[in-house]
Amino acid sequence: MAAERGRGRPRSEEADGRILEAALALLLERGYDRFSVDEVAASAGVAKTTLYRRWPTKDHLIVAVVAQLQDAVPVHYTGDVRADLTRYLNEIVSGLNRMRLAGRPATSGDTSAGLVAEVAAAAARHADVGAAVHAMFHRRNAVALALLERARDEGELRPDVEPEVLFDQLAGALYYRLLVTGRPLDAAYVGRLVTGALRGASA
Amino acid sequence: MAAERGRGRPRSEEADGRILEAALALLLERGYDRFSVDEVAASAGVAKTTLYRRWPTKDHLIVAVVAQLQDAVPVHYTGDVRADLTRYLNEIVSGLNRMRLAGRPATSGDTSAGLVAEVAAAAARHADVGAAVHAMFHRRNAVALALLERARDEGELRPDVEPEVLFDQLAGALYYRLLVTGRPLDAAYVGRLVTGALRGASA
Repeated sequence: MAAERGRGRPRSEEADGRILEAALALLLERGYDRFSVDEVAASAGVAKTTLYRRWPTKDHLIVAVVAQLQDAVPVHYTGDVRADLTRYLNEIVSGLNRMRLAGRPATSGDTSAGLVAEVAAAAARHADVGAAVHAMFHRRNAVALALLERARDEGELRPDVEPEVLFDQLAGALYYRLLVTGRPLDAAYVGRLVTGALRGASA
Repeated sequence: MAAERGRGRPRSEEADGRILEAALALLLERGYDRFSVDEVAASAGVAKTTLYRRWPTKDHLIVAVVAQLQDAVPVHYTGDVRADLTRYLNEIVSGLNRMRLAGRPATSGDTSAGLVAEVAAAAARHADVGAAVHAMFHRRNAVALALLERARDEGELRPDVEPEVLFDQLAGALYYRLLVTGRPLDAAYVGRLVTGALRGASA
């Protein structure tokens, strides 16, 4: 990339970084409904046309912000798959709770999925937003799947375990509680979930 | 109930049934965006005021329709927990695929969550709709949890299995694929999921 401009990142990448930073700040402050692309342009100091050329709608920009948040979640492999999974799922829980509360104060008993549900609905409504969301999770989950494959190869997991199905059970339980049943997500639940998935239910 | 009017169901219950039937037909034909409460009233032959008194918004009415669909899914206990879970999860998959395609033709490669995502977003947006959705799943999932508890009591499942966590892993994986990763849901996947959850991942 440096070759393009002789030094540092190319101008468009610098602008993208500024825009996404401004968009994240505004999104967390305002939430989905009161998030405005024009305000992001003003805050990042770029022309609206620049921003709309890159992300044609509010939904496209929000998905890009969420993708960047997801990519910031670290995956660690220490050789203890229970500990590594627990740590990673707790990071997901923190991120989901932060996203769901975007634009409003945390009050007890408020179980709304907030922004997480809005992103799912935007993905369902617009095929190109859906493709972007699915690609983001595909790329992101590949890191977690690699962790599970490595644990399987090291003999920590059964040789016939299917990493994709196991990860669906784990991440799926978290999103299900958030988006469907409205049950709380916390470290205690993550512990029960990892135990159940690793141990299995059969007598 | 019969005592209220001398015979049959009370008038309000009859009207509710007609309204929900008309609403379901219109919802499956039109999908979320083009669903209209006024058209439901006309189709069911009831005054709009009757309908709005019972369900104040389009979202409230749609949640009632979805609740009725869910309650129609049978849960069987035959003493073979793998077979019973597989059958129940396949019913959920059929219902989800029907709901997600409401208002549009099934075309290959279309993985949109459609109406399922709109219901999740409506639940996130309005606290009372959210409470209704959470209550619907709480009531509905109690039937599946009873199946798992019985299987545990009969010795088919481990004595320390947590039915809620196990069901989150199973139903959660289905909703996660539909609402988040856009991966397909079919009987082959249900088979892999039940196998993985019952067997567990630990070596």
